Amino acid sequence: MRARDLVTDFPTVTLDTSIAAAARLLAQQRLPGLIVVDEQGMPLSVLPGTQVLRLAVPDYCQEDPALARVVDEEHADRFLRSLADRTVREALPPRPRELPITDPDATLLEMAALMARTRSPLVDGGRLIGAVTLQALLDRAVSA
Amino acid sequence: MRARDLVTDFPTVTLDTSIAAAARLLAQQRLPGLIVVDEQGMPLSVLPGTQVLRLAVPDYCQEDPALARVVDEEHADRFLRSLADRTVREALPPRPRELPITDPDATLLEMAALMARTRSPLVDGGRLIGAVTLQALLDRAVSA
Repeated sequence: MRARDLVTDFPTVTLDTSIAAAARLLAQQRLPGLIVVDEQGMPLSVLPGTQVLRLAVPDYCQEDPALARVVDEEHADRFLRSLADRTVREALPPRPRELPITDPDATLLEMAALMARTRSPLVDGGRLIGAVTLQALLDRAVSA
Repeated sequence: MRARDLVTDFPTVTLDTSIAAAARLLAQQRLPGLIVVDEQGMPLSVLPGTQVLRLAVPDYCQEDPALARVVDEEHADRFLRSLADRTVREALPPRPRELPITDPDATLLEMAALMARTRSPLVDGGRLIGAVTLQALLDRAVSA
């Protein structure tokens, strides 16, 4: 079993994609994150879905989530809705994390090692082919 | 919008559930992790899917995923398949992470703050009701 047998097409966004569009992709396709590519389609970074939320949550609530309780329901809803107009560029962490890139020949063990350490490996065979998800890997791991 | 409006039923496992069964749940329902409960159904911990993989990956490959390349395909497959007979108990990290529990009245902002810090909050209203997923939260954040 090699990466090429497990890779799945994965939606990509650019730095200028709106958070509204990114959130829709995350929600509709039930993804934990999105691949951010440059204009040439080369992977730049991975945007974790939780990072999108951080944009909407004031610093004092991030340090102590219990403080969010003092904000009433109407304003709480508004914080989240304010996300829609921002862009992926604003949501990326200042120090982007290690991009887990592998090649189409990687074995199950290589993919598992990468995933245990970082996140879903991106598969690059000259161009970005897609990603291997935890679920696809586990599915193959436990089925004969 | 409150936690009770967003909570979804979430599959649970116990410490004695086999990794084969846990992996099947993660794969089939495309989940990032599972809720581990005790015999009374009270949440004990969250088992991240990547932690399941760690069980199968030898220590030397976790430190340096490139070392996994020296293991040939047949043996690489075997490492992953060896997972099936283990149990959830063996996969849990030695120091389980903070359990993000909230109540049915939590606002969108409280849930987002918890999620940005830890993971999907579990919703407990006397008993475990379920969890709020990133995707459900983002879906509501950018709609309407």
